[in-house]
Amino acid sequence: MTTSRRPTIGVFDSGVGGLTVLRALLQRIPDADYLYFGDTARLPYGSKSAATVAHYATGAVHYLQDHGAELLVIACNTATALAFNEIKSASRVGVIGVVEPGAEAAAKATRRKNVVVIGTDATISSHAYQRALQSKGVAVREKACPLFVPLVEEGWVEHGVTEQVARIYLSEAFSDDARDADVLVLGCTHYPLIKPLLRRVAPDHVNIVDSAESTAHAVAEQLRIAPLHSAEESEKRGVPRLKFFATDSAEKFKKMGTRFLGRPVEEVEHVDLKE
Amino acid sequence: MTTSRRPTIGVFDSGVGGLTVLRALLQRIPDADYLYFGDTARLPYGSKSAATVAHYATGAVHYLQDHGAELLVIACNTATALAFNEIKSASRVGVIGVVEPGAEAAAKATRRKNVVVIGTDATISSHAYQRALQSKGVAVREKACPLFVPLVEEGWVEHGVTEQVARIYLSEAFSDDARDADVLVLGCTHYPLIKPLLRRVAPDHVNIVDSAESTAHAVAEQLRIAPLHSAEESEKRGVPRLKFFATDSAEKFKKMGTRFLGRPVEEVEHVDLKE
Repeated sequence: MTTSRRPTIGVFDSGVGGLTVLRALLQRIPDADYLYFGDTARLPYGSKSAATVAHYATGAVHYLQDHGAELLVIACNTATALAFNEIKSASRVGVIGVVEPGAEAAAKATRRKNVVVIGTDATISSHAYQRALQSKGVAVREKACPLFVPLVEEGWVEHGVTEQVARIYLSEAFSDDARDADVLVLGCTHYPLIKPLLRRVAPDHVNIVDSAESTAHAVAEQLRIAPLHSAEESEKRGVPRLKFFATDSAEKFKKMGTRFLGRPVEEVEHVDLKE
Repeated sequence: MTTSRRPTIGVFDSGVGGLTVLRALLQRIPDADYLYFGDTARLPYGSKSAATVAHYATGAVHYLQDHGAELLVIACNTATALAFNEIKSASRVGVIGVVEPGAEAAAKATRRKNVVVIGTDATISSHAYQRALQSKGVAVREKACPLFVPLVEEGWVEHGVTEQVARIYLSEAFSDDARDADVLVLGCTHYPLIKPLLRRVAPDHVNIVDSAESTAHAVAEQLRIAPLHSAEESEKRGVPRLKFFATDSAEKFKKMGTRFLGRPVEEVEHVDLKE
């Protein structure tokens, strides 16, 4: 347990994608310390059953708690979609997932009550965003974009091929009932890296809601409403301390992670979680 | 155990990709029965350690043996590259991997002793093809093509995007020292589906070696040299019996598998292997 009065926030993802959420958190809440857990040896969660995902995610969040996390951010769309309640009931501390904040921001941003959500196959098949948005009276078109993650991982974030793929996916997404949709939700933590490209390709009238940013906003709100410490201002300042845990190679995590975090990923510790 | 005199061949892969190997086997050896095991719940193997892959693969081949397989084909480049010896020593029956037959066919086909191998990140990083080819006195350029698998899984096997990606990858592969290479080895079981496209994009003088076909050839050779049964010709005829096992959803396996096998995938049984 940390003895500092700065809050320690634990961020969990199946891989490096959640680092875009950490990046948004660092921008919005620089006066905190962060622990990040990437379950890189067992990704992708998308092809696994809800029970398995819940089991893996619970192990990871326990690890983060045991290392001092006082608030948990599930920066993994699949884990949030398939196992949020299980993770929540297994946690001693507060938990914020990535779906609800994105859906809430989209519901606020849409004037036409008509939204397009893009994500991986697993996230889209779960219909987690659909449920969250429909409960707010918003019509939803969900569109799986399975090529975006490998394109981002290939480093082709500003590439003709990625732009062509985006044109195909978005023209399919913004068709028929969704022709009038005025919000595009980025329902995958890899997508912020191609946000400038998606901005160019999406119809002009469309607002882009980045669920990484929405989640950081929700975490800031939560800390405002219920601060973890009665910290004095002077003790809150300083550079955030970042510590990373990965279940696969630390070197691979550093290399890939730096692109997602937008700054060097340094202190990475390899962790072997029991199956 | 089967009481028929037709051989029962077990085919193992982490997913549906190995069905292209089964497809080649069915063409070359129609007078056999086949058991196929796809470890779809635990794919991709590429991000896992050699020890984990060996553990998973060994479990799967034991399952195939227990269900009557008399010869095992490891139709998974990653499992062959990372764990072939472990699988072999854990098996009571003969085992044929997918790397050695591909390398052997390439060594025979190249006149310039200069070969390009394409595959997934995991297969290329393992340098299994490089080792196999260099031991035969052949120079090798290895090139990872991580976008091909998701493009094939998206169904874009004859698509402008896939062609553009192939042009980029192959022009990088056939450059510098590999400019004169006269053989292209398809070192991934997904790639036979884009073979016509790769044929168009690859330099004209290049021969394509499909390791699925090379493996089927190696299995036929093995059966010729050491038949499993002293079968009478009359008992060998008939339609091959196909039985599939998948560790993830049987429905998903059927749907995706049909495209890889080129015929309906019917009898699929869900299997839950202990971790």
